[in-house]
Amino acid sequence: MAALIKLKEPIPASGRGKRASNIYRVAAEIMCHKGYGATSMNDIAEAAGLTKAGIYHYIRGKEDLLFEIMMYAMDRVEEGIVAPAKEATDAEERLRTIVERHTRSVIEGVGAVTIVLEEMTALTPAHRKVITARKRAYFDFIRQTLEQLAAEGKLRNVSPTTAAFSLLGMILWICRWYRRDGKITPQAALKDYLEIAMNGVLKTEKGSFQTVMSTMVQDMGISAKGARE
Amino acid sequence: MAALIKLKEPIPASGRGKRASNIYRVAAEIMCHKGYGATSMNDIAEAAGLTKAGIYHYIRGKEDLLFEIMMYAMDRVEEGIVAPAKEATDAEERLRTIVERHTRSVIEGVGAVTIVLEEMTALTPAHRKVITARKRAYFDFIRQTLEQLAAEGKLRNVSPTTAAFSLLGMILWICRWYRRDGKITPQAALKDYLEIAMNGVLKTEKGSFQTVMSTMVQDMGISAKGARE
Repeated sequence: MAALIKLKEPIPASGRGKRASNIYRVAAEIMCHKGYGATSMNDIAEAAGLTKAGIYHYIRGKEDLLFEIMMYAMDRVEEGIVAPAKEATDAEERLRTIVERHTRSVIEGVGAVTIVLEEMTALTPAHRKVITARKRAYFDFIRQTLEQLAAEGKLRNVSPTTAAFSLLGMILWICRWYRRDGKITPQAALKDYLEIAMNGVLKTEKGSFQTVMSTMVQDMGISAKGARE
Repeated sequence: MAALIKLKEPIPASGRGKRASNIYRVAAEIMCHKGYGATSMNDIAEAAGLTKAGIYHYIRGKEDLLFEIMMYAMDRVEEGIVAPAKEATDAEERLRTIVERHTRSVIEGVGAVTIVLEEMTALTPAHRKVITARKRAYFDFIRQTLEQLAAEGKLRNVSPTTAAFSLLGMILWICRWYRRDGKITPQAALKDYLEIAMNGVLKTEKGSFQTVMSTMVQDMGISAKGARE
């Protein structure tokens, strides 16, 4: 199993590989805010601190860059979300790990990449096939977790498919509005998203999710004060 | 107050106005699936049953079309969601009206238009200012409703701002995955979204949301069977 990445630390890499992954991250964040169509190679070069000639040393063009970003995004999803979630044998704990890690990665900007995964029509058919299969595997992992929760009587009376898409929509949308330098701290945003997401799909029972939540919040040293508007 | 539209009926209009609003709807649905950047005037003409020359009788170009679609989308939001929600003096009922009507409009395709509202960078600055103000007013309406629910002790311990964006992300994402001809019926999808959204942001209490839900589901003649995968 691949080593887990720590989301708050830079992704370990060196030389060309490190520079390339920095470009993917910067490009993904710009594309996430502006949309893929409105993002130019110039925007990306500028934000990455490279000349326009310099960026072509690393990337052939916008379409190739998009595919590379998507591959990089799916690597991050598999290593940073799916692998640690698979370590949880309890389905509720697994769901919490998925929601927490995906939300956190979007809030911290690393996972801004995941919304870029929607720009499928800009890919070549061969590239599209590769990305579709990897996205499908991630979606199926979330849905299977929800199906297990349904079998255990913990899921609300909703379709696991609809629930999975609700969670993804909620999480992916974060990069459209959330600003790390705004009034709501990353810790407060993460805490709120976890509460809304978990209570949205799971039946609320004393001693179940509520307990897990308060334990986790204590563990993280999260304070609810100061981040409300 | 503007007359409320019935979401299941065609929007009343005639002649040029009717044809134009049909084009907006078709164009918005294509843009929603393919993304704005990947949608051509040809795609829109074809789906609207017009020649490429024909479509230019109604619309000057893609940028103007985008602005017109956004204005049309905000008209639909104000007439079809905000106006009826404002009739509810109870904040919980108002939130339910917002979630139900916005979700239903996206599911039924009419409200596919609302995700197009994210393509702000493609607008001229003057157009952007107009749309931003109208979007802001809608967002503030949702947030104020959540703030009232917080004051009444009904909101979970989450920021009304974060809760409002969670709901919008969840709802707007529907047009990225939902297919009316798929396994999940529109009625089942609407029921599930309402359950996930309302329980996600509101405290679950007996005699409160649960009762409203079951009454509403009975009123709508919704059946939970047959739509699960």
